[in-house]
Amino acid sequence: VVSIELVNTGTELLLGQVTNTHLPWLAQELRPLGLRIDRQVTVPDGPMIEAALRDALTRCQVVLVTGGLGPTSDDITRDIAAQLFEQPLVYHPEIFETIRAYLAQRNYVATDIQKTQAMVPTGAKVLPNSVGTAPGLLLSKNGQYLVLLPGPPRELKAMWTEQVVPWLRETFPDLPPRYSKQWRLLGIGESKVQEMLEEGVRKIGDFEIGYCARSGEVDFRLITSDPHLIPQAEKFIREQVGETIYAEDAGTMEESVIHLARAKNKKIATAESCTGGLIAHLLTNVPGSSEVFGFGWVTYANEAKMQELGVPADLLEKNGAVSEAVVVAMAQGALAQARADMAVAISGIAGPGGGTPEKPVGTVWLAVATKTHVVTLQKNLRSDRATFKHMAAQVALDLLRRELA
Amino acid sequence: VVSIELVNTGTELLLGQVTNTHLPWLAQELRPLGLRIDRQVTVPDGPMIEAALRDALTRCQVVLVTGGLGPTSDDITRDIAAQLFEQPLVYHPEIFETIRAYLAQRNYVATDIQKTQAMVPTGAKVLPNSVGTAPGLLLSKNGQYLVLLPGPPRELKAMWTEQVVPWLRETFPDLPPRYSKQWRLLGIGESKVQEMLEEGVRKIGDFEIGYCARSGEVDFRLITSDPHLIPQAEKFIREQVGETIYAEDAGTMEESVIHLARAKNKKIATAESCTGGLIAHLLTNVPGSSEVFGFGWVTYANEAKMQELGVPADLLEKNGAVSEAVVVAMAQGALAQARADMAVAISGIAGPGGGTPEKPVGTVWLAVATKTHVVTLQKNLRSDRATFKHMAAQVALDLLRRELA
Repeated sequence: VVSIELVNTGTELLLGQVTNTHLPWLAQELRPLGLRIDRQVTVPDGPMIEAALRDALTRCQVVLVTGGLGPTSDDITRDIAAQLFEQPLVYHPEIFETIRAYLAQRNYVATDIQKTQAMVPTGAKVLPNSVGTAPGLLLSKNGQYLVLLPGPPRELKAMWTEQVVPWLRETFPDLPPRYSKQWRLLGIGESKVQEMLEEGVRKIGDFEIGYCARSGEVDFRLITSDPHLIPQAEKFIREQVGETIYAEDAGTMEESVIHLARAKNKKIATAESCTGGLIAHLLTNVPGSSEVFGFGWVTYANEAKMQELGVPADLLEKNGAVSEAVVVAMAQGALAQARADMAVAISGIAGPGGGTPEKPVGTVWLAVATKTHVVTLQKNLRSDRATFKHMAAQVALDLLRRELA
Repeated sequence: VVSIELVNTGTELLLGQVTNTHLPWLAQELRPLGLRIDRQVTVPDGPMIEAALRDALTRCQVVLVTGGLGPTSDDITRDIAAQLFEQPLVYHPEIFETIRAYLAQRNYVATDIQKTQAMVPTGAKVLPNSVGTAPGLLLSKNGQYLVLLPGPPRELKAMWTEQVVPWLRETFPDLPPRYSKQWRLLGIGESKVQEMLEEGVRKIGDFEIGYCARSGEVDFRLITSDPHLIPQAEKFIREQVGETIYAEDAGTMEESVIHLARAKNKKIATAESCTGGLIAHLLTNVPGSSEVFGFGWVTYANEAKMQELGVPADLLEKNGAVSEAVVVAMAQGALAQARADMAVAISGIAGPGGGTPEKPVGTVWLAVATKTHVVTLQKNLRSDRATFKHMAAQVALDLLRRELA
């Protein structure tokens, strides 16, 4: 096992101006390689970097360092690494030429300041930067490695994928090949998922099993060294909890809905009260959604439900806006108005105000209408307002997805 | 100056399942106290916590620790701290009683496992948890302090504000009083803000000046030890860039719009094409928005613009959907349908597809119609799809805000 420590440099991280997204991103990238970050430290730009690197090298084999490769005076990671590994910096004119050409293409002129970025510790491997100026550097000594990566996330990600991953595979050829797949489930609790899947999956083969639960949803992830095991596990998982799977790997609910609707050539419409436009917003986040989504209503007021969707006044009066009868009328109204194949409607109490003993905050009614039938669903999603809207929109999209599937 | 180190415990942070939001949040909380985090480290649940705490105590006066206060076997921060400060754990029945009562209110039964959370190192100060079960702990020895805080962000934030900040002020009475205020600007670049404000603000007094720029917006922040300077600076800032200020401190654009509309008793309607419901979603994120927002349309298809908002077919044909004439007709249609006082309409090309040489991806037209007049605006907000929608919605809400103000 290779021990890895991550050193993030940057005063902005410690001032709270920037959130450290490098740690979760790199951690997720390392998992399929069978590697993990054992420890992470954030230090400000400046002399504390040296102590952090020295300290990390007492513990582990690979030290990943982000930031401090820029051209300005507070970018000193390169110098500290060169001193620490006793590999003096040498100017590489060909690197400066690459930087000059990169900037010229973008109508910028390289200045002498940029020459710092062309300084390389003797014997270090240069990691070209395909989307920026600062190259990364890879220093080694006595079987320990120092990998210097740029701070901007876009540059870090490109360099990681293009340069560091191949180097890791080459340097540590014994790393087990790792295959992973994730299924995203809605409408089932984490402990229920575990109960229904874990034992059966373990019988199929040797998997690393992972769960990630969040407001009403669970991601179930398998990692294995044998790619043939994944289809077997998938078959079992789909038999057990197939209906609740709304997406695979990093797919989203709205992508699943749009892709299904496009594949089946079905037009969708939305009629939203409590989600206030969020369902339409999510659907239109998907490129190409305009092919299947043309009409959406945000009928926040009762007058809007009546006037725009034809919900009868007496229905509202008798049942209240948050009721099965009203969401059915909303969905049918939207279906007819939009001449769509399927319409989803939602009405609920987001809070913090507006709850009653019979209909507390979090109560929500949903309906999906097609030309031939209507399905309805009632949920209580009590939470803060933002989480309520998110959960309600996911449940509504899932209802569409199930009807489309 | 008080030196502070933050130790975040939690294997999930190093596996990339959770992003560390404690660091930026605590860093921002410390700034108005004149304090900052000098170094941060993340260690997995388990024995590495001890080395991290020991190490941090060689360097600094206050060590903040998050996580590991739960009741399960991997929550061992409490034990490690007790050992390190040689203050043996003692069971406090009154704490268990508080936990029992807290859980009973939520229809949960406290189990013996929860008794771990009632163990307190001798002489430690207990920090009550107003929104969860695990109390925080404050240990001190030879002028050094170890502050143990819960991992869940909601619990950490409540405990910080209610318990830790008053303790910091009491323990370090010489901390300079610090006052801060932030103004949020839209439609002006960071360098322009600096040019228009920095010199003038520096003439008024001694301020720490901060900028935070993101897609089309800039936050301008002042921190000072003299509260009388803030109104003077505010006057100058409003003279210089008043029109671009859409909110103060942590306020949002949608809050400003809803508050202005409520104060002026004006009803708002939305007619969205390219933002696909995002404007309505943002407005309805604000509690109480239903008082001023009742009707929204997502007219993604041309047929929807015609049928729902009465946009004439020949207008669409002649000008295209992304045009001044069409957004004016959309806004006027929404205004009339909703019988509102003000309606905003937007139409644009979000991309990645759909651009032409005359109307490239990012082109957007906006209109706000009132009963007496219409204002229009054209922008190019070329970006990825999600950022485009965000920027377009902000510009649309800002147009409403300016009309309301």
